[in-house]
Amino acid sequence: MSALKMTSEARSLIQDIPSLKQVRGPLWNAALSDAMVIRHHHGESLDPRPMTNDHFSIVIAGGMAVRIGCDDGRVFNTHKVRAGEMCVLSLTMLANQPIKVSDVVAEGDLVLIRIPARYLDALMAESKAFRDFALASMTSCFVRMVDLVTEVAFVRLPQRIEKTLYELSETTGQNVLRITHQDIANDLGSSREVISRLLKAMERDGRLKLGRGAITLYPQFKEAYRERQHSAAGNSN
Amino acid sequence: MSALKMTSEARSLIQDIPSLKQVRGPLWNAALSDAMVIRHHHGESLDPRPMTNDHFSIVIAGGMAVRIGCDDGRVFNTHKVRAGEMCVLSLTMLANQPIKVSDVVAEGDLVLIRIPARYLDALMAESKAFRDFALASMTSCFVRMVDLVTEVAFVRLPQRIEKTLYELSETTGQNVLRITHQDIANDLGSSREVISRLLKAMERDGRLKLGRGAITLYPQFKEAYRERQHSAAGNSN
Repeated sequence: MSALKMTSEARSLIQDIPSLKQVRGPLWNAALSDAMVIRHHHGESLDPRPMTNDHFSIVIAGGMAVRIGCDDGRVFNTHKVRAGEMCVLSLTMLANQPIKVSDVVAEGDLVLIRIPARYLDALMAESKAFRDFALASMTSCFVRMVDLVTEVAFVRLPQRIEKTLYELSETTGQNVLRITHQDIANDLGSSREVISRLLKAMERDGRLKLGRGAITLYPQFKEAYRERQHSAAGNSN
Repeated sequence: MSALKMTSEARSLIQDIPSLKQVRGPLWNAALSDAMVIRHHHGESLDPRPMTNDHFSIVIAGGMAVRIGCDDGRVFNTHKVRAGEMCVLSLTMLANQPIKVSDVVAEGDLVLIRIPARYLDALMAESKAFRDFALASMTSCFVRMVDLVTEVAFVRLPQRIEKTLYELSETTGQNVLRITHQDIANDLGSSREVISRLLKAMERDGRLKLGRGAITLYPQFKEAYRERQHSAAGNSN
């Protein structure tokens, strides 16, 4: 991790974010001049100590996965903050509604800016572009949380594993996925043992191959996945 | 359901909400004069047609349960809006991020006000009290969604049923609970059959008694529940 005062590189990253590049004016410039830039490599934990109520955060590259823990050691990536979004978690700290998170982990190469809390209300009052940005961040966070609750409540674990593998393969463009059983367990709020057992069943079905730190998807894995999505979409019409 | 122009009764309800009674001024008065007051009795479905992007809603008495549906017919009360909160669902409509809800159901005697969308940004710009109210509504919604995801992912169904019954009993002050197996299933995103089976197991254990449209909790049900909460709190220290 590194924490630096605002750099010209960070300022140019903000210009790449459609909803943020509309925010302009002396107050925004002052907020950025007082901001800290935090960088983490993929998979690194963010230091939880700065999770205090003196700033709010905006992700300008990469993403953050917020992990909640359970007494039995399971963790669950409940919430992801993407590039171009305000971190709603930092807003809950400001509103004195802290959430007990077990960890916050960088996804991709994370760059986030921490803006002192005193600017939040002033920016909301002054800038329509900032209000639109804040509202869009909060509503898209809400939409994804509803999707997540729906998925966890309604979709069975084997199908959720398939979705995770399919989407990772589509995102990376690879059929050989560098992902551990523990990573999948964390993403889905399950345990490594349960995930390993279900993956082994998929291997026996001939849909994928398990290796050291990698899972190889066979073509029939994706075909079957797409076919099922297609027929599910048909049913709901 | 009834929809009326703003009444003096509704105005006095707003004065009972600490976070809203701070909002003052000509703009807020104009917004309230253009607002509609919607009333529903407990258990009534809200007409989904006004769920359009021309207003935002604030619950001023009772509550709303937002239900999401699954293809197999199960529904799940994913999100509750309480008295004194802005409905984040109505904000997602304004932000053109509609959520496919299956139903919105009144809890208690619901009174909500619908304020035309054009006032939202103006109120955010003008009133610090309104900004604080909006931010508090959105962060508390986020906190509850994270709690819900954690519960659904980590807590087993029998314990979630016990929690539902315990909390209903505490809220109503009754040990005889007027709740159907279907109501519990909807609250927990499960099916009536599964809930009935688990409730029958609890009846066999002597913790409760199932009757027609009612569930009677025996004293040992609450004692066992409190003891478990107590020991769980001890473990996490």
